[in-house]
Amino acid sequence: MARCDELARHSELSGGLTRVYLSPEQRAANERVLDWMREAGMSARLDAAGNCVGRYEGERPGLPALLLGSHLDTVRDAGKYDGMLGVIAAIECVHILNASERRLPFAIEAIGFADEEGTRFNATLLGSRAVAGTFKREVLDSVDVSGVSMRDAMREFGLDPDRLQQAARQRNDVLAFVELHIEQGPVLEAEGLPAGVVTAINGATRLAVELDGLAGHAGTVPMNLRQDALTAAAECVLAIERRCGSAGELVGTVGKLETLPGAVNVIPGKVRFTVDIRSPRDSDRLEAVTEVVAQMQSIAKRRSVAIKVTKTHEGGVAACAPWLMGQIGTAIAAEGIAVRMLPSGAGHEGMAMIELCDIGMLFLRCKKGISHNPAEAISAVDVETGVRVFLRFIEDFQPKAHA
Amino acid sequence: MARCDELARHSELSGGLTRVYLSPEQRAANERVLDWMREAGMSARLDAAGNCVGRYEGERPGLPALLLGSHLDTVRDAGKYDGMLGVIAAIECVHILNASERRLPFAIEAIGFADEEGTRFNATLLGSRAVAGTFKREVLDSVDVSGVSMRDAMREFGLDPDRLQQAARQRNDVLAFVELHIEQGPVLEAEGLPAGVVTAINGATRLAVELDGLAGHAGTVPMNLRQDALTAAAECVLAIERRCGSAGELVGTVGKLETLPGAVNVIPGKVRFTVDIRSPRDSDRLEAVTEVVAQMQSIAKRRSVAIKVTKTHEGGVAACAPWLMGQIGTAIAAEGIAVRMLPSGAGHEGMAMIELCDIGMLFLRCKKGISHNPAEAISAVDVETGVRVFLRFIEDFQPKAHA
Repeated sequence: MARCDELARHSELSGGLTRVYLSPEQRAANERVLDWMREAGMSARLDAAGNCVGRYEGERPGLPALLLGSHLDTVRDAGKYDGMLGVIAAIECVHILNASERRLPFAIEAIGFADEEGTRFNATLLGSRAVAGTFKREVLDSVDVSGVSMRDAMREFGLDPDRLQQAARQRNDVLAFVELHIEQGPVLEAEGLPAGVVTAINGATRLAVELDGLAGHAGTVPMNLRQDALTAAAECVLAIERRCGSAGELVGTVGKLETLPGAVNVIPGKVRFTVDIRSPRDSDRLEAVTEVVAQMQSIAKRRSVAIKVTKTHEGGVAACAPWLMGQIGTAIAAEGIAVRMLPSGAGHEGMAMIELCDIGMLFLRCKKGISHNPAEAISAVDVETGVRVFLRFIEDFQPKAHA
Repeated sequence: MARCDELARHSELSGGLTRVYLSPEQRAANERVLDWMREAGMSARLDAAGNCVGRYEGERPGLPALLLGSHLDTVRDAGKYDGMLGVIAAIECVHILNASERRLPFAIEAIGFADEEGTRFNATLLGSRAVAGTFKREVLDSVDVSGVSMRDAMREFGLDPDRLQQAARQRNDVLAFVELHIEQGPVLEAEGLPAGVVTAINGATRLAVELDGLAGHAGTVPMNLRQDALTAAAECVLAIERRCGSAGELVGTVGKLETLPGAVNVIPGKVRFTVDIRSPRDSDRLEAVTEVVAQMQSIAKRRSVAIKVTKTHEGGVAACAPWLMGQIGTAIAAEGIAVRMLPSGAGHEGMAMIELCDIGMLFLRCKKGISHNPAEAISAVDVETGVRVFLRFIEDFQPKAHA
């Protein structure tokens, strides 16, 4: 907890936490993390993408490694556990092993990824994509709000963008990637559980919807002659809620809605809104999207309002490996905690790491499910439980039997 | 028509018309209107509320005045006749009288009211309330979307909020207030009539509603654990539509709705929206408002969302004076047009002016009843007919015999 507090002080904001890729604050945070890795008995280095990588050798040097970790960058005005807790927990587990001079039949690497949120360059998972070898070079041309390209920012930071591929790991050297993270949702808290096993990182579809009706005077147009874009949108919002609420793990959100012209005495002629639909099963999500779009079209038609639906994002599920889910669940059960399997609604490094190796995730209960917000919180007791579960998982880890 | 086109160019939008109270565009429009008043033979001034007031003396200076006019402000993305046509028509009638050097046994004042729509400060009829002497000083504390108070905006514009009462007129100086306006509804067009006599301005209630739920990550909060302020608002919007659509002449509109924080991947924690309910019968309106508020409270309660409902406007039916209706009808009939009496669904200055004097209104046919929309239209022939009727009414005007 003290280390989370300490990392949170490396921020570009004085009154809150913001730390972005390749910033001076990130350099300072990296130095602390590399120190902690070394204190825990690891060899530690910054890789070609700026990720902090600590390695704790197994029973003999050079064994394939179980990769652990999370990210060290943040959203704007962030909480201090999203990402950081997973890096610090991994270091802490190694520290405990090292203190009792235990070596396991595999190496452990703790990684503090340099960019997951994509806050600075509006492109996410940069650190884990570099490690997975899927970093797209054109992303180097992305610029931040000051017009600085990622390529120039890397050079300024002391990294060589032309050697970025050196961060990529070989499949044979890696056994799995397992991340400890706060849930960022309310499920574990609602069920009174400190930890849970992630089944998959949900796939997501995002839509932009525009409804065009007829603006008119709020006092003079009879109700039966209206083409009100907002009442049509209201029906769409409820249709999305109903459809996504009727199928277990599907979620659907209209996060942003605007009325035009937007005056108290004018019937809205135009409404624009966003739709975000996610599911741990791609088929469920695609089916829901198809049905929701059909329902919105039918609502618009019945109300004589034109509708335009544009897909703005589509990403499939990253499923956690059942063999890792089983081992994480066993470690939870050994602490006397009921094993709750739950999907991750938020995105994580695993979405990139799955291109390199099997992935698993351990979720810890957080307060009210609040995240991406300074109010993000987790109790010290839950962190202690989480580290105990994580350590047990590591100690008992059995690599997948090769087929 | 050319003057309506010219005023429409004084807009904060380049591709459409928006002109709000105390804006630079309003200052520019005022200057043109004051020029036109002077060209028509009037003394012209800006009053303490920012209304343009032109005075054409009668047979001798200082006679009580027949007040004519309408408003110069607009809704967002407005048409160019709502309000402006009534100001320009009044100036035109005086211009014709002045050109033939006619003086009447009463003065005429043409007023271009500075705020009727309430677009900027969400409080309507500011100009006519100042003239009627019913302006409430607490309204000066209202703020626009940029957080500027009306008090500061008045000072910035060059007006003294502490001298606002100087805009108020004395009952003895005023004979009546008569406004020419487009119908903003479909009745006259449907009956093939270019003009009609207004019987009453419908009563209206406006509400500001704020729903407070819980913002959360769109991917991580299950549907059944959400306190989504927008889905609650969507139910309210449909409840208002259903209730107001079920009773003859009642209308109900949600014209403006905003989601906070308003991001594609965040469940809306807060939604604010406006409600506008009108009826030609006060009892019908009040009953509908009571029921709608109860329904919204029940929706909010069921969804565990806090609700705050604030009444921002309440105005009863403003009945036109029968003696003025008679004289307006006589002027219409003299042009060979059947005399159609009809209520006004829209609000007008008369709602405030009725506190000062008797009111009357002349409605002109507009295209498809469209208003508060750039497609608002009236034919040049109908404008010519309207001005002829208006001039005849003025020339033949007989003040009410004092009891």
